Amino acid sequence: MLDPLNIDLRRYIIHYGQMAQAAYTAFNSEKASKYAGSSRYGQSDFFSKVGLEMGNPYKYEVTKFLYATSSIDVPDAFILKSLSREAWCKESNWIGYVAVATDEGKEVLGRRDIVVAWRGTVQPMEWANDLNFTLVSADPIFGPGSVDAKVHQGWYSMYTSDDPRSHYNQSSARAQVLDEVRRLVEKFKDEEISITITGHSLGATLATLNAVDIVANGVNKPKEGSACLVTAFVIASPHVGDANFQKFFSGLDELRLLRICNNPDFVPNYQLLGYSDVGQELLIDTQKSTYLKSPGNFSSWHNLQAYLHGVAGTQGTTGGFKLEIDLDIALVNMSADVLKDEHLVPVSWWAEKNKGMVQLANGSWMLMDHQGDIDFGL
Amino acid sequence: MLDPLNIDLRRYIIHYGQMAQAAYTAFNSEKASKYAGSSRYGQSDFFSKVGLEMGNPYKYEVTKFLYATSSIDVPDAFILKSLSREAWCKESNWIGYVAVATDEGKEVLGRRDIVVAWRGTVQPMEWANDLNFTLVSADPIFGPGSVDAKVHQGWYSMYTSDDPRSHYNQSSARAQVLDEVRRLVEKFKDEEISITITGHSLGATLATLNAVDIVANGVNKPKEGSACLVTAFVIASPHVGDANFQKFFSGLDELRLLRICNNPDFVPNYQLLGYSDVGQELLIDTQKSTYLKSPGNFSSWHNLQAYLHGVAGTQGTTGGFKLEIDLDIALVNMSADVLKDEHLVPVSWWAEKNKGMVQLANGSWMLMDHQGDIDFGL
Repeated sequence: MLDPLNIDLRRYIIHYGQMAQAAYTAFNSEKASKYAGSSRYGQSDFFSKVGLEMGNPYKYEVTKFLYATSSIDVPDAFILKSLSREAWCKESNWIGYVAVATDEGKEVLGRRDIVVAWRGTVQPMEWANDLNFTLVSADPIFGPGSVDAKVHQGWYSMYTSDDPRSHYNQSSARAQVLDEVRRLVEKFKDEEISITITGHSLGATLATLNAVDIVANGVNKPKEGSACLVTAFVIASPHVGDANFQKFFSGLDELRLLRICNNPDFVPNYQLLGYSDVGQELLIDTQKSTYLKSPGNFSSWHNLQAYLHGVAGTQGTTGGFKLEIDLDIALVNMSADVLKDEHLVPVSWWAEKNKGMVQLANGSWMLMDHQGDIDFGL
Repeated sequence: MLDPLNIDLRRYIIHYGQMAQAAYTAFNSEKASKYAGSSRYGQSDFFSKVGLEMGNPYKYEVTKFLYATSSIDVPDAFILKSLSREAWCKESNWIGYVAVATDEGKEVLGRRDIVVAWRGTVQPMEWANDLNFTLVSADPIFGPGSVDAKVHQGWYSMYTSDDPRSHYNQSSARAQVLDEVRRLVEKFKDEEISITITGHSLGATLATLNAVDIVANGVNKPKEGSACLVTAFVIASPHVGDANFQKFFSGLDELRLLRICNNPDFVPNYQLLGYSDVGQELLIDTQKSTYLKSPGNFSSWHNLQAYLHGVAGTQGTTGGFKLEIDLDIALVNMSADVLKDEHLVPVSWWAEKNKGMVQLANGSWMLMDHQGDIDFGL
């Protein structure tokens, strides 16, 4: 399946990778905004707003937005804070969403797919130096069967922390996502269900914890009926846990995890004592692509759209590069400067009109980067 | 009138300064675009597109777009070139426009105002080092009365060069603007007419040459009838000509020129042997404003919107700073990082949605940053 990479699997990785991208795309990272750290778009027209509706046969609807906070100090990039004293929320950030295939989407996919997409950090490299790599026990969430699995305390904190001061984290991201997946599994128990978890970078670590958590706690199983398969596509993931975590992972039969690593990317390849990776690795190498600027840099090697371009074109560890999927190369420059100039695609082109500044009738300008009737998902 | 600065004069400087800003705002500086170096917007809805329609009592319509080229080597910033082999034009750039007050605008202004606005360079500081300050005789355009006035060869070349290879510069910017002003003066000869020339930075030098040129050659006078006054508001202007140019200028009765200089701005204050400034100087100091980041930098001191903010608030050379005109402070950050963070205005916020990338029905993205029916003004 992996070497050479099966065409359907390529298509799925790209599909779920774009759903992880959507969590970046919608994220309001404008610190001047009261709404910094939230989703720019509401749940109801989410996939249309992030550009995943047109030409996309896989139809989904967002059923829940997820919010995270942290009870330990984490780098600023993890919880982006508004400069405004009237910020929508001081403790939490929007961290992803749960979506489910519509009837039309189910028709194409052949199953009622439940997707959880976790957002990474907007500035991927800045926090690497600030982070310490302390491991903490995940027993509180994985239960007694977890054989003292230990995981990175930063990812664990983002996944499990609540904060009574935060309207959006009265319960943790973990509790939010488990409740929603449980609800959907129950709702669609008479259909063929799949659960797919995806994320990039920090989002990949949350996706890994979440996928293990769902299976370990039987959230993929309705009250009456049998469990469904949980698949995780984790892209550019830093290390998540120790050898016990790996052992615990290996004992979970209903779980498949594909860990996509770009050869030059520093983040997944960082050697770290005490950590062991889980799942199956798919190694790509974006430096083989003739479409991209050479040699690239830390940021371009880690970029999610560059990864998906790499997946579309990989010819295996010993082969070259040839696009097998008609994936638009313009996407590679969506939020980065990766594509060669000759392709005539603007650099970092995803941008709101006037960054959300809107002109009023009197001629003055006002930041209006939030839909008045937005559905924040509570 | 100048110290303290008269309130009506403040209003006019800001009004004409915003018309100079419009030439920046509309300029397509995206080198990946086939249309790099042209106006993003057409003539018919120009002022609406650049944000000068709402709340603005001074109504104008664009009657002509102006294009410039250079017959001598000038810094890249002067003539921005598309990376595309299918560029709309390889030799010329859009350099400004001629507009005339509508009937409604005339009502408010009390006269039929003809405006010429000249665009500066998008990256104002980068070319300063590349430029040499050779003077050339302006006799060919000012005629025998010019007493061997000499002007900077770079500004002169941009103003007077044509290029038979260029569809847009079969005639020079000079010929284009004189023809159009002559036409409008003739058309409105039975009304009270004014001619106002404006520009910032490089645009200020072209505005200076153009204003002198119009009066020297009697373009402000219909075939039958008397000449009208020509007023130039030149902002952040580098030096334009020598002592003979100054002398020639002083002999032109129908010409008023106000040269607005920001105290810390390097560009107008650069000491240069052999040059003499023309017109009346208005000195402002944006470092006195409590709204702006302190101390600022080369770029913020030279920024056009920062200048207009300075004009709105100046209390004279010995006074402090207090906004006398209700000029929206958000404009200061339009294309720069000048305003203090506490005002919660995004940095460099003027931006097209997705930099002009548009999603097609099949889901792919295409750069469509040019109106199909655009009126290029030929």
